Amino acid sequence: MLGNDYAGQVCSIARTLEVVGERWSLLIIRDALFAGVTRYSEFQENLGIATNVLKARLDGLVSAGIMERRPLADQRGSFEYVLTDKGSALGPTLIALTEWGDRWAAPDEPPILYSHRTCGAPVTVQTICARCGSVHPGTDVQAQPGPGMPSDYLEARHRHRRSR
Amino acid sequence: MLGNDYAGQVCSIARTLEVVGERWSLLIIRDALFAGVTRYSEFQENLGIATNVLKARLDGLVSAGIMERRPLADQRGSFEYVLTDKGSALGPTLIALTEWGDRWAAPDEPPILYSHRTCGAPVTVQTICARCGSVHPGTDVQAQPGPGMPSDYLEARHRHRRSR
Repeated sequence: MLGNDYAGQVCSIARTLEVVGERWSLLIIRDALFAGVTRYSEFQENLGIATNVLKARLDGLVSAGIMERRPLADQRGSFEYVLTDKGSALGPTLIALTEWGDRWAAPDEPPILYSHRTCGAPVTVQTICARCGSVHPGTDVQAQPGPGMPSDYLEARHRHRRSR
Repeated sequence: MLGNDYAGQVCSIARTLEVVGERWSLLIIRDALFAGVTRYSEFQENLGIATNVLKARLDGLVSAGIMERRPLADQRGSFEYVLTDKGSALGPTLIALTEWGDRWAAPDEPPILYSHRTCGAPVTVQTICARCGSVHPGTDVQAQPGPGMPSDYLEARHRHRRSR
């Protein structure tokens, strides 16, 4: 939805932001995923955004396959918006954003707490090494080219670096 | 940096997006955190964005306390941009965004792989219940008001809901 500005970026972060990076999109998904909101009027009430913006965002989420628009059986001409698996899979991203905001941008205590639906204990997002368990995401993690990285992309960068 | 559009939102996701939600900000932080980029020219080369946009984003990240601008000892008038703890703490958010993009928006295999700096094993972000361990973030997690949620905010919503 951010247009082609990120087209030169071979990066799944950039690709994710293309889909959900527009203002309000992640907040709509948050309301759907963790507060069970499905109706246009409820999204509007919760977010307090202009109706044309909300309509554009919901339409965009539907065409990106993140939400489905379903007719309401009891109300002719009315619809509900329901997350697909692709949309629900944004849960860890939303929790990670919340945790950062709680720690670094919340003036008071956390306004929202996440918990396990079954047992009620607190839920957090953790950075886990397959061999060692929990690791520090700021210092212990490195990024390396994966199988989906085009070789000419890397070669061009490498050539450029050597030439400096 | 998104202005006051989110002001009515008592939510740490909204607060995080206010700080890092502008286009390119998270990609700048990604390059700094996982690729060790510190120079203006390297950010420019990696991201390929207009220099005035890059300058505005770096200035914004510095004033938000996410990066520090440090003079380079060997080059008068030159600077490097280094993440603060507040900036490095965005690691889990970036990895979560990557994982979603790899699964739902990458046309090929993952272009980037995260691994543990010490042992080289793969690193992922997981949603963890303090009591039960790993849980499904799309279906097993609920959100409830925390201590930082203003009571009048909840009461107003509750009143509105009952009156419908």
